[in-house]
Amino acid sequence: MQVLPTIITPTDAKTYVDDQLATYFTKRLTDSAPLGASYTQLWRSIESLVMAGGKRFRPYMLLSAYQAYEPTGDLEEALPAALSQELLHQAMLIHDDIIDRDTTRYGIPNIDGQYQSHYLPYLEDSEERHHMSISAALLAGDVLISDAHRLLSSTKKPQNVVEQASQILSTAVFEVVGGELLDTEVAFLPKGSITAEIIAKYKTASYSFVSPLTMGAILAQAPAQEVTILKELSLHLGIGYQLRDDLLGVFGDETKTGKSTSTDITEGKRTYLVEQFDQLATDEQKSLFYSAFHSLDASDEAISQCKQLLVASGARSAVEAEIERHREATEAIIETLSVSAQSKEGFHTLVAKCLSREV
Amino acid sequence: MQVLPTIITPTDAKTYVDDQLATYFTKRLTDSAPLGASYTQLWRSIESLVMAGGKRFRPYMLLSAYQAYEPTGDLEEALPAALSQELLHQAMLIHDDIIDRDTTRYGIPNIDGQYQSHYLPYLEDSEERHHMSISAALLAGDVLISDAHRLLSSTKKPQNVVEQASQILSTAVFEVVGGELLDTEVAFLPKGSITAEIIAKYKTASYSFVSPLTMGAILAQAPAQEVTILKELSLHLGIGYQLRDDLLGVFGDETKTGKSTSTDITEGKRTYLVEQFDQLATDEQKSLFYSAFHSLDASDEAISQCKQLLVASGARSAVEAEIERHREATEAIIETLSVSAQSKEGFHTLVAKCLSREV
Repeated sequence: MQVLPTIITPTDAKTYVDDQLATYFTKRLTDSAPLGASYTQLWRSIESLVMAGGKRFRPYMLLSAYQAYEPTGDLEEALPAALSQELLHQAMLIHDDIIDRDTTRYGIPNIDGQYQSHYLPYLEDSEERHHMSISAALLAGDVLISDAHRLLSSTKKPQNVVEQASQILSTAVFEVVGGELLDTEVAFLPKGSITAEIIAKYKTASYSFVSPLTMGAILAQAPAQEVTILKELSLHLGIGYQLRDDLLGVFGDETKTGKSTSTDITEGKRTYLVEQFDQLATDEQKSLFYSAFHSLDASDEAISQCKQLLVASGARSAVEAEIERHREATEAIIETLSVSAQSKEGFHTLVAKCLSREV
Repeated sequence: MQVLPTIITPTDAKTYVDDQLATYFTKRLTDSAPLGASYTQLWRSIESLVMAGGKRFRPYMLLSAYQAYEPTGDLEEALPAALSQELLHQAMLIHDDIIDRDTTRYGIPNIDGQYQSHYLPYLEDSEERHHMSISAALLAGDVLISDAHRLLSSTKKPQNVVEQASQILSTAVFEVVGGELLDTEVAFLPKGSITAEIIAKYKTASYSFVSPLTMGAILAQAPAQEVTILKELSLHLGIGYQLRDDLLGVFGDETKTGKSTSTDITEGKRTYLVEQFDQLATDEQKSLFYSAFHSLDASDEAISQCKQLLVASGARSAVEAEIERHREATEAIIETLSVSAQSKEGFHTLVAKCLSREV
């Protein structure tokens, strides 16, 4: 283990967490051996997926918050919790991909995708194969959720602190599960009853921002008031992040994001951007837009026109303004934190990274 | 909360655990409100399922083991851990039902089954409905796995003890996930490479017997040697239980077990009973048996003949003998435990309940 530096950077965090992940997978691969080659195969599949990508941004946030309130402490004490954030994230991605019927992640086949190929020689029927491959992915996610909690329990801190951290992790799971459910059901619910910002709060901000930042502070035994402020900050940051992500999903550079800028339109994703369009567009604009939106065979020209309408209606500017509102709130809250100037600087950099990604 | 008695019975355990479950669901229903009616609906669905059945046998085992090593202690201190065993069990049932494509449990529709009806007004396509309903079940299981760990972390015991308990729970999840995977893949694996007893060990004995009994002892801070002996005992008991369950699946009283005695045969379940048949039957017996085994449209006569062949070949007697071997091993191990005569008596009653259920 390298000596940890005074102020951790995202690159440092990735190095430490990847190092911890390597140790974790070596252990789980060894543990799986008595159960047979089948189970070792599943662990190889999980390992290949987790190591194929991921910026380890949640561990970075946790370590930053820990360091802000325990500047002279040993950052290594927070590493199991940092790893637990990453395992939970990976579990959620694996289960989210089942729900979204996605078979790739980080540019490679995900667990479902890998097992579709794995079962090809045994199962001719594609529906059977799909059922078996999502079963493998379901099981993979389950063990990662459990191991996330298990790692957290190994944190060398007073028991009431570890218990509070466990409470944060379980609240994160509780909320992301609710957010996922809302996201799948939103099409059935009365229009406007669930907004994209509510889904962003529970599906994204809670487990990806509130959980790492507040857990880092809790482990450093920060005052309760600071934890409350950090939670407020995380919600603004997380919702803003999701809005930026929605913009990138339509106006981003595909070569940078690795995501198609057509599918949100052709699949009819009801983002905050589309909600704003509904409020701002003229009837004529709406008529043109909805002739292509949520139409899987929309032409490139029609998709391009949709994007232009999102700009012309003022929807894109409205999203930018909302991101700006969340940015300003986050920046203002950072200034109220009782942490060093260096830590504040670190948080400001985090905000810039999350909210200012180029469109 | 009632005053807990000196020696806990399965009936006591069910009362205490159902009481704890009621409190747990009240809290989760309240917590779900800010996320909207959709999420409250999921929690109602989970509550209705969990409260519809279940003998709370795993919590009973945990409390018995705790009491054996902490006879004058407060049993209430072990209740969060007892509840965590039940939540994990319920999560595993919900996810196992997805894998097995079952839509009922405890005589009522399970989460998948309930959501198939719930989504009926919104989704005409049955495949879409199935995908959405298993997504809801997937999410329900996820939050229960997480809450099982969270509850355990609230145990008022020294931190190293709680950490050991968390380790036991995560090993249980790790092993049951491996056991489930083996069970789904056994049809593809080289014949004989994975036996029914290996699957019983990992899919059943580990989380349903080893985890509650050893965790109870760990929480009571029993000597390490006692925990090792209890683990050995639990494996015999758990594997014996599964073999008894396999016999009941074919020769049981459907009105008592609530399970069809035909489906193991028509679905071609490769139990220890069938493995014994393969070793003991004549070629003629095998030819007759396999003309109906794993044939979904087998006639009642053919199924009945299969059962007779399982008896005539000596397979049923061989399973009875194997259960007897596990029973004797368990009984002998109980006598080596450093616990009171009263606790030993309790363990003997447990063995009788698990292994002597009427066929």
